[in-house]
Amino acid sequence: MGSEQSMSEDFFFSSDTVRHTEPLRHARKVTFDEPLELELGGRLERVDVVYETYGRLNERRDNAVLICHAISGDSHVAAHDDGDNPGWWDIAVGPGKSIDTNEFFVICPNVLGACRGSTGPCSINPATSRPFGRDFPITTIADMVQVQRRLVDHLGIERLCGVVGGSMGGHQVLHWATKLPDRVRSAIAIGTSARLTSQALAFDVVGRNAIMHDSNFHDGEYYDAPEGPTIGLAIARMIGHITYLSREAMQRKFGADRHRPRDIPTEFENRFSVGSYLGYKGGKFVELFDANSYITLSLAMDMFDLGGAGDTLREAMRASRCRWLVISYTGDWLFPPEQSQDLVNALIAENKPVTYCNVKSTCGHDAFLLEDDLQMYGELMRAFLANVDAAAPPGQGDEEDPYGNAPTSIFQKRRVDYDRIVDLIPAGAGVLDLGCGSGGLLMRLKRRGHDRIMGLEVDEEAILSCVRRGLDVVHADLNDGLRAFADGQFDVVVLSQTLQAVRDVEGVVDDMLRVGRKCIVSFPNFAYHKLRKMLAEQGRAPEAPGLLRFKWYDTPNIRFLSIADFEDFCRARRIRIDQRVALDTEAAREVDDDPNLTADLAIFVISR
Amino acid sequence: MGSEQSMSEDFFFSSDTVRHTEPLRHARKVTFDEPLELELGGRLERVDVVYETYGRLNERRDNAVLICHAISGDSHVAAHDDGDNPGWWDIAVGPGKSIDTNEFFVICPNVLGACRGSTGPCSINPATSRPFGRDFPITTIADMVQVQRRLVDHLGIERLCGVVGGSMGGHQVLHWATKLPDRVRSAIAIGTSARLTSQALAFDVVGRNAIMHDSNFHDGEYYDAPEGPTIGLAIARMIGHITYLSREAMQRKFGADRHRPRDIPTEFENRFSVGSYLGYKGGKFVELFDANSYITLSLAMDMFDLGGAGDTLREAMRASRCRWLVISYTGDWLFPPEQSQDLVNALIAENKPVTYCNVKSTCGHDAFLLEDDLQMYGELMRAFLANVDAAAPPGQGDEEDPYGNAPTSIFQKRRVDYDRIVDLIPAGAGVLDLGCGSGGLLMRLKRRGHDRIMGLEVDEEAILSCVRRGLDVVHADLNDGLRAFADGQFDVVVLSQTLQAVRDVEGVVDDMLRVGRKCIVSFPNFAYHKLRKMLAEQGRAPEAPGLLRFKWYDTPNIRFLSIADFEDFCRARRIRIDQRVALDTEAAREVDDDPNLTADLAIFVISR
Repeated sequence: MGSEQSMSEDFFFSSDTVRHTEPLRHARKVTFDEPLELELGGRLERVDVVYETYGRLNERRDNAVLICHAISGDSHVAAHDDGDNPGWWDIAVGPGKSIDTNEFFVICPNVLGACRGSTGPCSINPATSRPFGRDFPITTIADMVQVQRRLVDHLGIERLCGVVGGSMGGHQVLHWATKLPDRVRSAIAIGTSARLTSQALAFDVVGRNAIMHDSNFHDGEYYDAPEGPTIGLAIARMIGHITYLSREAMQRKFGADRHRPRDIPTEFENRFSVGSYLGYKGGKFVELFDANSYITLSLAMDMFDLGGAGDTLREAMRASRCRWLVISYTGDWLFPPEQSQDLVNALIAENKPVTYCNVKSTCGHDAFLLEDDLQMYGELMRAFLANVDAAAPPGQGDEEDPYGNAPTSIFQKRRVDYDRIVDLIPAGAGVLDLGCGSGGLLMRLKRRGHDRIMGLEVDEEAILSCVRRGLDVVHADLNDGLRAFADGQFDVVVLSQTLQAVRDVEGVVDDMLRVGRKCIVSFPNFAYHKLRKMLAEQGRAPEAPGLLRFKWYDTPNIRFLSIADFEDFCRARRIRIDQRVALDTEAAREVDDDPNLTADLAIFVISR
Repeated sequence: MGSEQSMSEDFFFSSDTVRHTEPLRHARKVTFDEPLELELGGRLERVDVVYETYGRLNERRDNAVLICHAISGDSHVAAHDDGDNPGWWDIAVGPGKSIDTNEFFVICPNVLGACRGSTGPCSINPATSRPFGRDFPITTIADMVQVQRRLVDHLGIERLCGVVGGSMGGHQVLHWATKLPDRVRSAIAIGTSARLTSQALAFDVVGRNAIMHDSNFHDGEYYDAPEGPTIGLAIARMIGHITYLSREAMQRKFGADRHRPRDIPTEFENRFSVGSYLGYKGGKFVELFDANSYITLSLAMDMFDLGGAGDTLREAMRASRCRWLVISYTGDWLFPPEQSQDLVNALIAENKPVTYCNVKSTCGHDAFLLEDDLQMYGELMRAFLANVDAAAPPGQGDEEDPYGNAPTSIFQKRRVDYDRIVDLIPAGAGVLDLGCGSGGLLMRLKRRGHDRIMGLEVDEEAILSCVRRGLDVVHADLNDGLRAFADGQFDVVVLSQTLQAVRDVEGVVDDMLRVGRKCIVSFPNFAYHKLRKMLAEQGRAPEAPGLLRFKWYDTPNIRFLSIADFEDFCRARRIRIDQRVALDTEAAREVDDDPNLTADLAIFVISR
């Protein structure tokens, strides 16, 4: 798929049209003379790679970040200086930006098969001294990465600090991380998938059919003809544009003035505002891109297949040895979030360190190139790259949980139960924290030396806090279950002060008992004497400081249970209660005598 | 847009390819010699209409149902007998089916501008004795309906019992109901909209660009040429196919064998299973459809515009005088449910009788032509048509609410509060029932002679029950608010035994007080003495027969409040309590003495 690389609201002067009329002044070219054997049997005698770099490689040569571009991108990821043309990801790459070129040595090569300097169908075929055209071999994502590896070798880099890419760039990231695991310390896969949806594949097929049936295509041998397959390529690009935008984004751009086309010269239908946009964009693209390259790259995406959501994908992920950051966008229908979740689930099942966030966005697939949601996805990248070595940032573990907006962050500032819960967890145990908030409990465990710890959380800001602390956290709604996790995958699963906000109590408890050998559940005791009294004597819905500080009409707590209720629940389901800790948090002490009356908070260790 | 008219899983033998090779044996043709002035200034000296009819027109001539087809449809909506070819909506139209031809006289004409018999671009232009081609005037939905009106006049029908259509057919329905209000008693608008989304419009633009830039298009004058714009039309059709299916449906069809194309002869790329499907479908369509017709009809859809969600749309709807049934499908991204909701909201704002259901479906836009969800949408049509005259079916008002699965149908069989609530409602008042379930309260009001009554409900089955009872009900989640309703639009708004299941209590109460001059709220009293006792003495979450019969972990009740709590709530918000009725439902009597202790159910009349 790939995407509009740098789109501007004023589409008549968007940078992608200006940029390419200028030479890439800072690009370098390296030629590899050793023949390249391609995955599907083709062979290239020599390969040119055009690339740009930003920042400086440090002495340990361990600060290199490789950026992989999408279908219409090139090596010019960002401007090199004030006088330079804008790059396609200027918003994210540069000094002080999300991918900080003061910190990192950024490398961005043009991919094999493209048309912006690296070897592709419009390059001269040494065998004929004419452009390859139809003789250009079928190219896969693996082939692109093979060439990138040569470049990384050439630059003397043993192990990349990070590989980053969205869309087709994300496919390259997935290939790097799974097929060259020793070369990658971290992978950032954005708006991508293990393989295209059938729908996305279908759009690509139609685009290629339009190009290949253009009467000027001449089976790919159009370079000497007066005209190339410009109509077909424009049609393919128009289809692409629609798929890169969300329905909302299109409505915002074209809804109000739908019947008023822009006054532009175009050979295409110019009747509606969205029509003039597509006509203009399609027509312009033809001047900037080679049709054979479009076919080559879109076919490479379509053939890319690490497997569906099942075992094949898990097997592919098994080889990886890096930390992962997976980002999707809620409004992306071309690479829908479920596909990123498939990737994440496979990584979870393989016990790989992974962080995932499904960023709320209305921008569609293009979101990763736009400023709208940069504050979230850019900051996630920055924080993740800062913690690639997973060392706890000094001091941060001492912070209390900031008081968040997460449905599960409905706590008072002081988490009196954490100390007790930490005590209940055996040293070194692998721990999954359900509804981990901003990572308060996980940080305590991390500082105690646990290395297999992970959180699930539903709130974006809380996720970001975890990433800043170097924790692995996966964006998930507990009510959707823990299907990704294997039976007994963690020593301990924790559900602290979250049970009372869970919709599907039975499902969540069943699932946590399956995934954890031991489970720790804490919740406020609704039968605490002060609460009983409020209802019995005042006839009012009980309220109390802390978890129960809300009013009946605005509380996030939707389940009211007592210690006795929970014990009944366990008994009826043959859940073993291994331990019970009853706390009077006001008095900050454990209570033994009639805890259902005297405790306001209970912690249970349960198992099956 | 329109849609694949009758699709089968085995796409190599799908009926749309067989059907059109046969003549339409039962079709009749009528020619109107009076010139037709078209909306955008064109003129046709004479117009042919090909149509088919099913069933018999009754003596009162009041049982006629007009069916309007989508872009690729024709007059052959159903088979006429066992030996006949299948029609495009055989599943819904016929003896004993949803649109029952034993009851109704069904008329289905081929639209103006199409290519299946009625006058269109491939018809002979009397002025030149050659096909119209590019001289065919620009045609709008209004023009299609104008021709249909001539046909209805010709058949001697004053007022149609119903006009039914999906997609482009739905556009015709909207035009009939709003521009010829005296001619329509009921309108069924399925998977349609007041205007296309910018995204849907964009796909149409690309399709037309593909056709018009096909080197064989010759500006529409291709009828005498050896070949027409077959590539362009096939490309347009391929795009269409993708948009008619949901992502899930495509995944089901093509996900498993994505890399194994079907072994079919096609001139298009045949590399992936979805590619062979599109190539086959696109190639076949070209044999069956005329490119100029495709341009004409898709442009008619694109130009159709009753306005966005605002005042323009309300104005358009104002003229209508029929009962409405609006149906959308959750998986339809081409005509997304929000667009149907815009139609419904405009009708609500104009006090029109409307029923709406957003049918849960994974079939995409094509859902209205497929059997998968017929049980719901077919039954809705059947029940709605049976109640066009809005008379309460005899006896049905006596039924108690069936015990449903709706989140709001969490009641015991006997609704002891209904009698009391009915008493509180002035005779003849306009009533909106929020969370109306299967319509128990509304039926009592209807039998008492109220004619402005309406329900909102979230559960499909409950909606269907209401429609069967001839009630107007709109599919809605209360938590999304009552934005569609005007201030003081109803005399009384009722929220009976639903408050405790509402997430956004403050929003819902605010909104109901805005919409209703008086509001009636009933809820279980959490401070009822038996409940107090359970918590106080047994230390367990209160349970009771009826509304509180659930366990803490599976109850749909997420709000626990007492009479005193609700009174505090009203006081703090300056909500006037006009009346309070406290019931002991076990003893089936009203209580006065300390109701917060002695009543298990409270009914409040409030206003602002």
